[in-house]
Amino acid sequence: MECVSVELASRAYPIHIGPGLLDRVDLIRPYLKQARVAVVCNTTVAALYLGRFAASLRAAGIAVVEIVLPDGEAYKNWETLNLVFDTLLRERCERSTTLIALGGGVIGDMTGFAAACYQRGTPFIQIPTTLLSQVDSSVGGKTAINHPAGKNMIGAFYQPRLVLADTDVLKSLPDRELRSGLVEVIKYGLIRDLAFFEWLEENVERVLARDTAALEYAIGLSCRHKAEVVAADEHEHGERALLNLGHTFGHAIETGMGYGEWLHGEAVAAGTMMAAELSRMRGWLGVDEVARIERLFVRAGVPVKGPAMATGKYVELMRHDKKVQDGRLRLILLRRIGEAVIDDASSVVQIAEAIDIRIG
Amino acid sequence: MECVSVELASRAYPIHIGPGLLDRVDLIRPYLKQARVAVVCNTTVAALYLGRFAASLRAAGIAVVEIVLPDGEAYKNWETLNLVFDTLLRERCERSTTLIALGGGVIGDMTGFAAACYQRGTPFIQIPTTLLSQVDSSVGGKTAINHPAGKNMIGAFYQPRLVLADTDVLKSLPDRELRSGLVEVIKYGLIRDLAFFEWLEENVERVLARDTAALEYAIGLSCRHKAEVVAADEHEHGERALLNLGHTFGHAIETGMGYGEWLHGEAVAAGTMMAAELSRMRGWLGVDEVARIERLFVRAGVPVKGPAMATGKYVELMRHDKKVQDGRLRLILLRRIGEAVIDDASSVVQIAEAIDIRIG
Repeated sequence: MECVSVELASRAYPIHIGPGLLDRVDLIRPYLKQARVAVVCNTTVAALYLGRFAASLRAAGIAVVEIVLPDGEAYKNWETLNLVFDTLLRERCERSTTLIALGGGVIGDMTGFAAACYQRGTPFIQIPTTLLSQVDSSVGGKTAINHPAGKNMIGAFYQPRLVLADTDVLKSLPDRELRSGLVEVIKYGLIRDLAFFEWLEENVERVLARDTAALEYAIGLSCRHKAEVVAADEHEHGERALLNLGHTFGHAIETGMGYGEWLHGEAVAAGTMMAAELSRMRGWLGVDEVARIERLFVRAGVPVKGPAMATGKYVELMRHDKKVQDGRLRLILLRRIGEAVIDDASSVVQIAEAIDIRIG
Repeated sequence: MECVSVELASRAYPIHIGPGLLDRVDLIRPYLKQARVAVVCNTTVAALYLGRFAASLRAAGIAVVEIVLPDGEAYKNWETLNLVFDTLLRERCERSTTLIALGGGVIGDMTGFAAACYQRGTPFIQIPTTLLSQVDSSVGGKTAINHPAGKNMIGAFYQPRLVLADTDVLKSLPDRELRSGLVEVIKYGLIRDLAFFEWLEENVERVLARDTAALEYAIGLSCRHKAEVVAADEHEHGERALLNLGHTFGHAIETGMGYGEWLHGEAVAAGTMMAAELSRMRGWLGVDEVARIERLFVRAGVPVKGPAMATGKYVELMRHDKKVQDGRLRLILLRRIGEAVIDDASSVVQIAEAIDIRIG
């Protein structure tokens, strides 16, 4: 079992990574303020794991309120969030009742935001069940719901007390979701760790085969990278923006196609290729490096081109992104593989050209 | 002009108190991260002050998005909050656009919560236009919306950058609202400042006549008291609970009667009398002290008895309150005038008896 400590000004919290963690109530117990929790998950995860998880909590004398939401990014909205609040209030959950997110990024984001808002803040524990949520949303405290006009527009920075990333749970993850999650793993190599990128070039098939040791290594290192960045910049004023490599393009794809059509990692992969092309046009990446990134994404089985939306639509949607400051598009580009840079000097014409190259 | 500094672990911010502050764009300007603000207010306040306020901002080169909401506690809900988000997104407000709340407690709470959530946090300035919001919600960063099952159930702790409390604006405040706000002023005397309580016994009519000097003194001292308590306990783990004198009873009145029927201060006044009776039953207040509190409330023109709801309904609604911990009712009582105490040893029978005495 790996353990990564996320060190924040306000609070430190541990991420445990390894097999069999779903049954480790002993790891959860010390963090509860009362012997009562509300577990939030979706129908898919509930069918697989909720019964077993709730049973081990109850066996340890912990009362469990179960909240099962519909599955999918399309439900990451206020209406679904309100189902959580309705249940918490009906069951008289208190300010000291811990909310546990058992699920992927959507469940983590929504449960975290519910915990941030319910009675102005209740304790929160995350048990991410997808690769994406284990390496991304489990670190950093970003919680949110979507708005029809933009992804993650309504949310809060709110840190969990504890994260359990169970590698066994990934065995039931659909292949497409595993591949999508792998994009964020590759991202850490791209933005800050050439050696990790090279390790992935050697081990990508082991990760895809869900080899426990490979997963534990890749997840642990990803969390460690994210924890370092977040600790230096909890509220995203500077360095943390580097984590958004490919995301401004990617959000445009997700929003433009309707939430849920493209998986997050798929959109980020195509978006990262757009960012790579722009980095090449800015004179930073060579043609060979762009091709090298593309090769790894192809082996990971994710798109290296975006959907056929009008270029103007891409740019329009990107302007809505949170990374806009004083109307300028602020993008994350690559100086080289292993080093990212914040850039707001690219012209709209250059951005459009990079998108054009990578429209499928 | 008075100035109170609220000193918090995360950030300090000033509250300016005095006449003519609504026109002092020079006080606002240094806090803006970009020359653009969104001003949120309700139809009533908009008719009186929005044109003038927006004009002085624009004259200083600051772009203004105006967001006017329906008036009343009944609108302090998700649907109305979403109108704010819709406009912010449509107008492409950014993470560095400052939200300004121009209005009473409902506008302050909603705008603050909108600022806490919009893009996970935008800067926030408060210009409270009622006595209640000037002495209460302007200090402490409590923001929220209501849920059908309970008041302020969904919210966040989120601090403003600056508060401007203009005493001139109170001249247009309806008498009933001024009286309601005065209840929270009296509360500070009751929970921690006998001398202030005595000053109010001498000056309550001057405050009701909206004498500028009396208002400035009463508001300044109230803010100073609240700032001291909040600085010691930003997230309401301990001492801050003392500010809730009369509020658990009062929330039951507000919820039971439907939001907006009873003004907040009116419900708190009746609730404070219930807390005073319970304090007497616990052997802390004398009959004469209960009567002395009642006399000041009567001069302030606020209710000293609650509405004729069944006692069981009161208790039931109080159980839903956030101050419940492990199922016990935690109430704020008075050891004497000028000293409050947190109490969780009152039995439900005693609580019901105190309510009974004060049902009108």
